[in-house]
Amino acid sequence: MNSSKAKNFRALRGSWTQSENESGEMIEFPYISELCSPTPSKIVMLVVDGLGGLPHPDTGKSELESANTPNLDRLAAESACGLTTPVAPGITPGSGPGHLALFGYDPVKYLIGRGVLEAIGMGVELKAGEVAARGNFCTLDASGRLIDRRAGRIPTDESEPLVELLDRIEVPNVDISVYPVRDHRFVLVLRGAGLAERVTETDPQTVGVPPLEAEAVIHGAEKTAQAVRFFAQEAGEILGERSSANMVLLRGFSALPDLPDMGKTYSLNPAAIAAYPMYRGLAQLVGMKVIPTGETFDHELDTLEKVFQQHDFFFLHYKPADAAGEDGDFDAKVETFEYLDARIPRLLEQDIDTLVVAGDHSTPSIMGNHSWHPVPLMVKSPVYVGDGVGEFSERTCASGSIGRIPAVSVMTLALANAGKLQKFGP
Amino acid sequence: MNSSKAKNFRALRGSWTQSENESGEMIEFPYISELCSPTPSKIVMLVVDGLGGLPHPDTGKSELESANTPNLDRLAAESACGLTTPVAPGITPGSGPGHLALFGYDPVKYLIGRGVLEAIGMGVELKAGEVAARGNFCTLDASGRLIDRRAGRIPTDESEPLVELLDRIEVPNVDISVYPVRDHRFVLVLRGAGLAERVTETDPQTVGVPPLEAEAVIHGAEKTAQAVRFFAQEAGEILGERSSANMVLLRGFSALPDLPDMGKTYSLNPAAIAAYPMYRGLAQLVGMKVIPTGETFDHELDTLEKVFQQHDFFFLHYKPADAAGEDGDFDAKVETFEYLDARIPRLLEQDIDTLVVAGDHSTPSIMGNHSWHPVPLMVKSPVYVGDGVGEFSERTCASGSIGRIPAVSVMTLALANAGKLQKFGP
Repeated sequence: MNSSKAKNFRALRGSWTQSENESGEMIEFPYISELCSPTPSKIVMLVVDGLGGLPHPDTGKSELESANTPNLDRLAAESACGLTTPVAPGITPGSGPGHLALFGYDPVKYLIGRGVLEAIGMGVELKAGEVAARGNFCTLDASGRLIDRRAGRIPTDESEPLVELLDRIEVPNVDISVYPVRDHRFVLVLRGAGLAERVTETDPQTVGVPPLEAEAVIHGAEKTAQAVRFFAQEAGEILGERSSANMVLLRGFSALPDLPDMGKTYSLNPAAIAAYPMYRGLAQLVGMKVIPTGETFDHELDTLEKVFQQHDFFFLHYKPADAAGEDGDFDAKVETFEYLDARIPRLLEQDIDTLVVAGDHSTPSIMGNHSWHPVPLMVKSPVYVGDGVGEFSERTCASGSIGRIPAVSVMTLALANAGKLQKFGP
Repeated sequence: MNSSKAKNFRALRGSWTQSENESGEMIEFPYISELCSPTPSKIVMLVVDGLGGLPHPDTGKSELESANTPNLDRLAAESACGLTTPVAPGITPGSGPGHLALFGYDPVKYLIGRGVLEAIGMGVELKAGEVAARGNFCTLDASGRLIDRRAGRIPTDESEPLVELLDRIEVPNVDISVYPVRDHRFVLVLRGAGLAERVTETDPQTVGVPPLEAEAVIHGAEKTAQAVRFFAQEAGEILGERSSANMVLLRGFSALPDLPDMGKTYSLNPAAIAAYPMYRGLAQLVGMKVIPTGETFDHELDTLEKVFQQHDFFFLHYKPADAAGEDGDFDAKVETFEYLDARIPRLLEQDIDTLVVAGDHSTPSIMGNHSWHPVPLMVKSPVYVGDGVGEFSERTCASGSIGRIPAVSVMTLALANAGKLQKFGP
């Protein structure tokens, strides 16, 4: 195993070294930066979160196939179609890897820590060197042993006042902030000089034993481990009188990954328009300019219209399909596609040179969860005349001219279609 | 960035270290040499340069779809069909990477320098350790600043006498040869002991400034840099009295890459039959025996017939399709396919065990340029019964049994079909 693989391997175990981006330039194709040149052409990448699905057992039709989507279907006929593999066959991505791949970042190489993703998902601004962790309330018995690792998933209105108490904890030489998430969960952020992410988790992943003490994995993480232990002890004292939710567990210590800048890498001036904080956070991690927008896709389209002249790449995020899929609500997911479809004409009013419609992963309603299944893709540009597929769906895209490609290649394809890539090699 | 990636990255910048072929064996599949054994079976790889295309906006049909090609269509029905990705989705290859991939060489690992390709394209024989550069005439003003980097693209009959003057320049301890290319362009070759390619370019890529001085990037390139500076100064003195084309710019310093030998790697005795010098040069780089031939595909077929008994692998190059595509002449490209089609029966008169029809890249007429689009592929052999696709085209090949594969895998597939590959693993 080479050192970078070893590093990634450790990463998946929960405590890792900060990923090193030695070149600051390389994304999927090693020479991509050399081949990119700025042009006036405009790319819109519409990411339909959880786009792919699976057939309903009663009808044999997927959510996309069940939806009445004349505009998306017409677009598919005029586009080059294909399927993306989000990470690798059989691998179900989280939102982080799913999106990083679409932005052209190898999701196996560039890892985003759980603490970081939870923090940016809550709209918390993180800076380099700051360490974020996922926290949750748990319940100990009188002898200090875990009896419930999630404190009965106490509701948000019960946990929020507790989070406020934790946020008041003062740790010597480290600034501590605690942010509520939902139910029993919160985010802990440590700010200050000399912090490092390589700290062990305090969740023993079982009951009947006490929480673990945070330990430094490397010498440079000792200050961080000490601060975490101090915080946990204070939390135990503040909460200890309670019968439940009387302690905290801390996991996924992580700092911002060192991701190459998307704009510099592709010679783009990229903008992100996303109603949900997590996707704005992901876009910010790769250096996109995050444009403030409202809470719906209509707001996103308003925003796109407003800033369309100011950027040459737009990441436009559509969340509802994934949410319905995760709820396991097949009909609701169908409706989210019809809602989106009705807004496609408005999207197409913009003078888009290359429109990419992609998904970060599938979220089949019958699974109620993200999945590994290939995701429909269409690319409309002047240098594709269109595959002429009859509708936009998992099945029709499988026979499209793009074929099945890794999601990490979508960005290269978008750049090529927009005339932003020079020839490789003489 | 690891060192080999760093090396490749520099490569595209025009001055790079000689690529190191550490194993001498590895091409696409790392154990390929171990699996290959010589057999009497014969493979013909017909490379139709610029094979792939895009639909004409008026008809919705690509060049291949528009051409009347009954023989290619019959062959497609009897073959396994698929599409190749030349380098990676969205990446448009030059002729070098496009062909290296078809010969089984990872085009991202094995890079051919611009100077080398220009030299072999002109039929210049290069040996290991020699350094080639692309040169061109430019025009300086009275104060020595560039006013035209291409000297008004002076015509060949005007530049050739100037090239002869440059060819007479004598540089201490280095043999200099200058070869005309076309218009304002020429090739400079440096021969002698102790030369190295890592020399900076003299083209500042802008006007209003003087040409740059060639500098050594590494210690070992100082002799080369000195020779280049000496040559440039002499050129300036010889041309300096002229009002235009009064100086030269030099770029793409490169030496022969260290490519594994194709014959040894695959246990083949490979031959190349190509009417154009550049493709003969590429074949020679990978160790094929280049068979002298004439200027047309008919000449190439004459040559194939003559030497058919003497080799077990033939790279047969068909250039006209690419040329027509680069001219943006849709109808001319259609005609090149019909011309080729009429010669397929003659090709099939040979006792070919595995016939591969592939392309190094697409050259859609509507783009007038190489492109990244997937390229039709067919493989006819006794161990494929044929997909039964109705014609040979981009669309039909998309549904073929080979699927979409990287171009670098075509050679392995050809060897397998010809019964030249043993089982991998016990």
